[in-house]
Amino acid sequence: MVTNDIDHLISLLAKLPGLGPRSARRAVLHLMKRPDSLMRPLARAMDTAAETIKTCSTCGNLDTRDPCAICADARRDTSVICVVEDVADLWALERGATFKGRYHVLGGTLSALDGVTPEDLGLPQLSARVADGEVAEVILALSATVDGQTTAHVIADRLAEAAPNVTLSGLAHGVPVGGELDYLDDGTLSAAMKARRPIAGAGGP
Amino acid sequence: MVTNDIDHLISLLAKLPGLGPRSARRAVLHLMKRPDSLMRPLARAMDTAAETIKTCSTCGNLDTRDPCAICADARRDTSVICVVEDVADLWALERGATFKGRYHVLGGTLSALDGVTPEDLGLPQLSARVADGEVAEVILALSATVDGQTTAHVIADRLAEAAPNVTLSGLAHGVPVGGELDYLDDGTLSAAMKARRPIAGAGGP
Repeated sequence: MVTNDIDHLISLLAKLPGLGPRSARRAVLHLMKRPDSLMRPLARAMDTAAETIKTCSTCGNLDTRDPCAICADARRDTSVICVVEDVADLWALERGATFKGRYHVLGGTLSALDGVTPEDLGLPQLSARVADGEVAEVILALSATVDGQTTAHVIADRLAEAAPNVTLSGLAHGVPVGGELDYLDDGTLSAAMKARRPIAGAGGP
Repeated sequence: MVTNDIDHLISLLAKLPGLGPRSARRAVLHLMKRPDSLMRPLARAMDTAAETIKTCSTCGNLDTRDPCAICADARRDTSVICVVEDVADLWALERGATFKGRYHVLGGTLSALDGVTPEDLGLPQLSARVADGEVAEVILALSATVDGQTTAHVIADRLAEAAPNVTLSGLAHGVPVGGELDYLDDGTLSAAMKARRPIAGAGGP
């Protein structure tokens, strides 16, 4: 005998990625046992986020201010732009903390079937940013999937036209750190073999 | 460069069962892309639920009213009480839609280690409900775990004392419908063998 309020909450929670109807039910029961320590704070945090989070008009990142903290940070290198598919990818690179330049978030990949055009991904804005002279390198950090690589090709073509002097680069393919060779697919393994590097102190290949 | 508002929302969402920090990040990104169609409605639904949902003082079910819709439903059989561990178990039985009596939700199992006493599980209230004369049967639908079965024994002892004429029963053990024998544990299989039933129209065992 589930009431409408509870049903409604379950159906909304079930829309989150990684939660189905069954885990949404579990989550709702968990919340209802802790109305004051979890459910109300969560509702408030969502309201606040919906109110304050905006998309950075320069790079497409999500932040409470526009331009975002990364674009506004004067200590970051303005000569390198890293193109990523999604804000999640930007967060992942920031957790890695090796990249100190700025970003361009596409918000997806090109797709004729789904009607995603270069304009939807902000490619004209990216070309304009790159062409203004300050940028020396653009890193295309897109997924190694068919869609990601197609999009990378289109971006590379456009940028070669808009700013011929800018270096274009992509992420290295190879064995994941901590990964076992046995579990790797053939494509990754042969890419890692082709891109093999001399080991410091020993003779190269 | 995750802002504090987003971090706070992620850390709250990560407390839900089934969501860790990684899936909470994915969920938050999903929400932030749909502030008006998902994030605000979800916040509102949680606020409403925190406001309106209460625990039924008779059976321990969660509902917008007290007594809950099940206890208030005059068409349900008042002579049978089904004892369950949790509201989730009550919901599961209601989805099955074969039980037409009323419930008693314990809210957990007895545990000397965690300091859960019979009073915490509402056993005095259950004894009083059962002893008032209208109840003919109590079904102990507790988990087939050590904790569940220990709790079932304690409840059976108390009810035998409080209301000696009331029938006590437990759920049948056996092969799950749709389950494959090969994957069943030995205990379930031998319980199903011991409780084997004659097939209609054929000779019994």
